[in-house]
Amino acid sequence: MQRIHIIATGGTIEKVYSEQTGNVQNLDNKIDRYFRQLRLPDADIQVTHLMNKDSLEMTGADRAQVLNAVQSKLADHAPMIITHGTDTMVDTGLMLQQNLAGLQVPIVLTGAMTPLGFEGSDGLQNLTESLLAVRVLPPGVYVVMHNQVFPVDRVRKDRELARFVAK
Amino acid sequence: MQRIHIIATGGTIEKVYSEQTGNVQNLDNKIDRYFRQLRLPDADIQVTHLMNKDSLEMTGADRAQVLNAVQSKLADHAPMIITHGTDTMVDTGLMLQQNLAGLQVPIVLTGAMTPLGFEGSDGLQNLTESLLAVRVLPPGVYVVMHNQVFPVDRVRKDRELARFVAK
Amino acid sequence: MQRIHIIATGGTIEKVYSEQTGNVQNLDNKIDRYFRQLRLPDADIQVTHLMNKDSLEMTGADRAQVLNAVQSKLADHAPMIITHGTDTMVDTGLMLQQNLAGLQVPIVLTGAMTPLGFEGSDGLQNLTESLLAVRVLPPGVYVVMHNQVFPVDRVRKDRELARFVAK
Amino acid sequence: MQRIHIIATGGTIEKVYSEQTGNVQNLDNKIDRYFRQLRLPDADIQVTHLMNKDSLEMTGADRAQVLNAVQSKLADHAPMIITHGTDTMVDTGLMLQQNLAGLQVPIVLTGAMTPLGFEGSDGLQNLTESLLAVRVLPPGVYVVMHNQVFPVDRVRKDRELARFVAK
Repeated sequence: MQRIHIIATGGTIEKVYSEQTGNVQNLDNKIDRYFRQLRLPDADIQVTHLMNKDSLEMTGADRAQVLNAVQSKLADHAPMIITHGTDTMVDTGLMLQQNLAGLQVPIVLTGAMTPLGFEGSDGLQNLTESLLAVRVLPPGVYVVMHNQVFPVDRVRKDRELARFVAK
Repeated sequence: MQRIHIIATGGTIEKVYSEQTGNVQNLDNKIDRYFRQLRLPDADIQVTHLMNKDSLEMTGADRAQVLNAVQSKLADHAPMIITHGTDTMVDTGLMLQQNLAGLQVPIVLTGAMTPLGFEGSDGLQNLTESLLAVRVLPPGVYVVMHNQVFPVDRVRKDRELARFVAK
Repeated sequence: MQRIHIIATGGTIEKVYSEQTGNVQNLDNKIDRYFRQLRLPDADIQVTHLMNKDSLEMTGADRAQVLNAVQSKLADHAPMIITHGTDTMVDTGLMLQQNLAGLQVPIVLTGAMTPLGFEGSDGLQNLTESLLAVRVLPPGVYVVMHNQVFPVDRVRKDRELARFVAK
Repeated sequence: MQRIHIIATGGTIEKVYSEQTGNVQNLDNKIDRYFRQLRLPDADIQVTHLMNKDSLEMTGADRAQVLNAVQSKLADHAPMIITHGTDTMVDTGLMLQQNLAGLQVPIVLTGAMTPLGFEGSDGLQNLTESLLAVRVLPPGVYVVMHNQVFPVDRVRKDRELARFVAK
């Protein structure tokens, strides 16, 4: 049984539609419901709901909290997935890379362009891909989305194309 | 074959998620795609995309346009469904009732609390119900949603409950 | 609050795919899960799981059991929906009609051509329609499917078209 | 742009429900429709519909045809995914391994326990995983399903658990 840590920080992937405001917001955790749609007989998934923020609102203190959470789990020698808003996903990833010298597991950042459960959402695809990726990738920090795997220092978001591209 | 007119005016039922703005907006028609998920072997559905507005933004001129569209179809003796934002659905319905003396077909107003295709959406349920309702209701103007049928002059939206209730 | 009785007898609508046999079978109740996807704030749904049979295997004794179940609920003065295999749905309906003189509520028989939850299924559409129909139809026995309402003595299944047609 | 070959041979993943027979059968190709639900901006997917068979009915001649198809695509230096029934997936995989000395790309066999588009299906999960796996795995023949990656000579199907396990 492979342990896999998920650290949830919010972002579009977790957004829900509010019938009261008519907007999508980070109000609730939803990724757990979606993991349960997958068959993961050999995975021991440990989810930490660290925060639930639009990534444009993440501060330096929030990023320090992400680093802290990651460090506290390193002793497990288990790979990690961080769900994150796409706008500053690369920033958080670079910060982790700089602060985790000698990293011995893969850390994958992923998210979605459209919230989980909305028609056309890429959220479940990205979660599925990330869960597979952390089993086969060498140690390092990556962005995994849309059937692509990018080392975090060689990727940027293309806002117009609504996806990540190599830089 | 039963002809049924659909007059689409927008509202939450038609809203789409924009990956560029991160909001839901009335940008695109989507009800046609959802009708095609239903089996309607005996229905001749005629869709008119009249406008695509949040119903809080509908003006008197917009309502006059709805009345016009309805009147232009009365010669068909076919029932009608008007998809509409829920916030002012009752206003439009009352206006129609006042201006359509001697109405000989049922006119059903319907919509959704959550856009079609978003998890937990009531949109397809309400469309399915409305299509059935116009086949069996007597002439008049109604609101049909959530397994309820209300004559338009005996209903109001309860915003907190996110549904319509008798008044 | 409107009470509505559902009497489930099986049929395609309830069939599940068995990973062990690779076939679809009447092994499990599934309609309750699907009712919960609908918004029914004004309905008090009472489900009776009477049997779970392919309707080609229903015997006279089974039909007597259906009649019994219906009669035992008549005192409620609540409308009823019977979920049933399509192949002998009309037979069961005619039997009910003959044995329920003076019926004061509508009884709707419904089912599906493709099991609930399989792509392209008509099951949830038919349930949604039936729940609306029993609120507005006069007393009598009906078949409701695919946006059509048939008095049970004026309908037959067209196997090739995979739907019901007037006779 | 990464070219990826898909060779479809049938199996449960492609089965469809027939309203005429009431059974699931390999009548039609469906994987293409499901690929289109995924975002694959950097993948050039080439699908070959080789056959559409329950894998218990695959003969030696069928397997020779699979080997032929694989060999004809090797010049592309592109990874391959073979969709296949689970019952004899390992047999086909071992045959490929024995006949493809010096293989320079990963070949992933995948399939499903429940057909694509049926509730609870693992089909889209397995396709998503396989598409990611062929981008990161070293050359060799693998089975990829349910968040697991098995070299084909170290795996067997556990029919009771309805999944693959290491052997």
